[in-house]
Amino acid sequence: MNQDTICAISTAPGAGGIAVIRVSGPEAIVICNRLFTPKVADKTLLTQKAYTLRYGSIKRGDELIDDVLVALFKGPHSFTGEDTIEITCHGSVYIQQQILQLLIENGCRSALPGEYTQRAFMNGKMDLSQAEAVADLIASTSAGQHKLALSQMRGGFSNELRELREQLLHITSLMELELDFSDHEELEFADRSELTHLASHIEKVISRLAHSFSVGNAIKNGIPVAIIGETNAGKSTLLNVLLNEEKAIVSDIHGTTRDVIEDTINIQGITFRFIDTAGIRETHDTIESIGIERTFQKLAQANIVLWMIDATDAKQQINQLSEKVLPLCKDKQLILVFNKADLLTTPQEDLVTDLPAHTQTLFISAKKKENIQKLQELLIEAAHLPSLSQNDIIVTNVRHYEALIRALDAIHRVQEGLAINLSGDFVSQDLRECIYHLSDIVGEVTTDQVLGNIFNKFCIGK
Amino acid sequence: MNQDTICAISTAPGAGGIAVIRVSGPEAIVICNRLFTPKVADKTLLTQKAYTLRYGSIKRGDELIDDVLVALFKGPHSFTGEDTIEITCHGSVYIQQQILQLLIENGCRSALPGEYTQRAFMNGKMDLSQAEAVADLIASTSAGQHKLALSQMRGGFSNELRELREQLLHITSLMELELDFSDHEELEFADRSELTHLASHIEKVISRLAHSFSVGNAIKNGIPVAIIGETNAGKSTLLNVLLNEEKAIVSDIHGTTRDVIEDTINIQGITFRFIDTAGIRETHDTIESIGIERTFQKLAQANIVLWMIDATDAKQQINQLSEKVLPLCKDKQLILVFNKADLLTTPQEDLVTDLPAHTQTLFISAKKKENIQKLQELLIEAAHLPSLSQNDIIVTNVRHYEALIRALDAIHRVQEGLAINLSGDFVSQDLRECIYHLSDIVGEVTTDQVLGNIFNKFCIGK
Repeated sequence: MNQDTICAISTAPGAGGIAVIRVSGPEAIVICNRLFTPKVADKTLLTQKAYTLRYGSIKRGDELIDDVLVALFKGPHSFTGEDTIEITCHGSVYIQQQILQLLIENGCRSALPGEYTQRAFMNGKMDLSQAEAVADLIASTSAGQHKLALSQMRGGFSNELRELREQLLHITSLMELELDFSDHEELEFADRSELTHLASHIEKVISRLAHSFSVGNAIKNGIPVAIIGETNAGKSTLLNVLLNEEKAIVSDIHGTTRDVIEDTINIQGITFRFIDTAGIRETHDTIESIGIERTFQKLAQANIVLWMIDATDAKQQINQLSEKVLPLCKDKQLILVFNKADLLTTPQEDLVTDLPAHTQTLFISAKKKENIQKLQELLIEAAHLPSLSQNDIIVTNVRHYEALIRALDAIHRVQEGLAINLSGDFVSQDLRECIYHLSDIVGEVTTDQVLGNIFNKFCIGK
Repeated sequence: MNQDTICAISTAPGAGGIAVIRVSGPEAIVICNRLFTPKVADKTLLTQKAYTLRYGSIKRGDELIDDVLVALFKGPHSFTGEDTIEITCHGSVYIQQQILQLLIENGCRSALPGEYTQRAFMNGKMDLSQAEAVADLIASTSAGQHKLALSQMRGGFSNELRELREQLLHITSLMELELDFSDHEELEFADRSELTHLASHIEKVISRLAHSFSVGNAIKNGIPVAIIGETNAGKSTLLNVLLNEEKAIVSDIHGTTRDVIEDTINIQGITFRFIDTAGIRETHDTIESIGIERTFQKLAQANIVLWMIDATDAKQQINQLSEKVLPLCKDKQLILVFNKADLLTTPQEDLVTDLPAHTQTLFISAKKKENIQKLQELLIEAAHLPSLSQNDIIVTNVRHYEALIRALDAIHRVQEGLAINLSGDFVSQDLRECIYHLSDIVGEVTTDQVLGNIFNKFCIGK
């Protein structure tokens, strides 16, 4: 696949001041040289040194397309590991398309999504987990996501996995050496108690990595927060205040919100994924019934539940829904939000008696934007995210998590085998399986189909 | 104003594979060097040669923001003429914002719209008409627009103006030399007949440039085409077919289209600006009356008029509107489009009798997309655009056009003065005024306020 030369617009789509078109592959320099007229006549791309820039024009025959800057990189010292040209042109969509078309007419092929990164992986510039982190890095919208993606791209996770695999290979080679000399029963190359100790250490590391996924996933995809409550309690208004924009339709008509609207918001660098839901009430309206059904489904996925209550009607709303809501929330962080507190004529204390002990309560006015900051603080608290140091390895990728769970299974079998003094060839098989799953993460044993799935999700031009 | 160092994201807004942040000004290299950790320890930006690239990381203190490529340019050999750094980072919005923020924390200022180009102008890298062409180039969406902007940016127009001004200065200096020796009445340095000849040549060139604006404006902003006709003749459907998308609301209810919708479409590299209009009919509905009023206003601005007629009701529709429409179209290209031709039961020939001689007629079905290509050909024909050679100078900018009209006035006064043998000091004054207006185009006599107006219209980052 690395025989052809690929091209794509690598900057964000649309018009800008400038745009960058990336060309990578064995013919990159020759093809670009054919289209490029340097400003200083003898400064062609063929004699240009790596890591330098030249100014000139791109022409179709005699017709000028644009004045451009050309950066030249020579493999293996480039992102892809291949010869690469980056053309910086004026950022009109027309020019970007014309240059791309010209490159294709001259023998380049349009790059597939993620193909530059895939080539970097194929050419050994990075392992698969680092390649996957490139896509995460580009998609990052919060400090937390950015930090995790960057750490993974820089190889933190890869190093941890490499160490694990070296330790596993060490045990395996000792066990297999023992098997080769199995006729000599007196020989035991691998000290079983030392092996047990080592396996236990490895189990701890894999287990920690696997369990970090719950944190990693929350950081990457946002901590799911369900907003529930009776119709007209002000759920959509609160969501709008939090989002600071009008994503949901707000009206005074009961049952306005029928679709489950999801949106994310960053609070102090932590991403929350808010799930606005249809109001819960007895209804004969089919569409709304479906909405309510979904509300309870979504509730199951949430870590945090904001139960919105109309403070002016609080007693009744709590009575009506407690039975339905409280059992569903027992493993979740539940925050009772008394809305319309500005309209309340009775003391707030009267409303918060008889509530389960572990529930948080807060009085706000979504409409008047009162006490919203306090609500944000409660959300941060409820998020329960450990503060991360720069070197913590956190798994954020479902594929990695699944491989770690399989590796964990295998190392558990190794531990059991060692405990009951199982024959070395059985233990060795489990050790090899554990190594296999860890190798899968960095792409050493990955199939083309898995690779296709991974890189298809990238944007074109990366 | 060139004392501070400015920074901005120069690529299109949003997430992409990569993004480029441009830093320009006296402190560009020093500030970036403070934030940049080169991959090879001693390769700091301070020792980096112009027109080269370096790989490394951008950090806030110890915290990594991104791995980046840094391109370095030294004034005056850069776009702005100043020291310039271009940072290519991963294209996440978060990273772009973080790097920009870091630059500002370290002494850069956020660039104003068009400030890089303005600095290029201030530093003598280009004249004002070339700077204006940069914005046009970025906004280009068709081959015609692109060609004109590129020619202007490359200085074609500027060279033509420079020649004109040199010729004008030559005449002026001869006239003024004559004035200095006015006591010696026998002396006549400037041969009046030669001057008359030269002025006539200059008048021709300025006149040609000024008149090219009608072509230039049509290419830049699109040739205005009004679609008129009775309600329900299929105007919106035709527009949708031409636009190949659903921009207008189509329904069978009479008078659906009330707003004047404008959209542009490229046909064979020529941009047409379509004006969809409210249907013309007697109405008591206030809103629709306003729409019809606007229809006639818009008609006045159009070069081409497509009069849509329901073929099944043609005789009546032609009778009803001929009196109103035909007088308004006498200086325009009128195309009668008989729509719903597929529903027609009588011969087409019967409908096209009694029409004014110069009108084009065409039978189509907008709904079934029949004969649309023929309509496009008629539009190209009606556009009457001269085929442009690469070297034609075409004026596209209203500001330039107005300056040329003033210069034309002045040169006309010069010609009159020479014809009636007016005193040299009067003629000289008109000559200087002509030079002044031409200098205004390239920015030599332009005020700060005019400059502000020009560069405010640029995007940030260019």
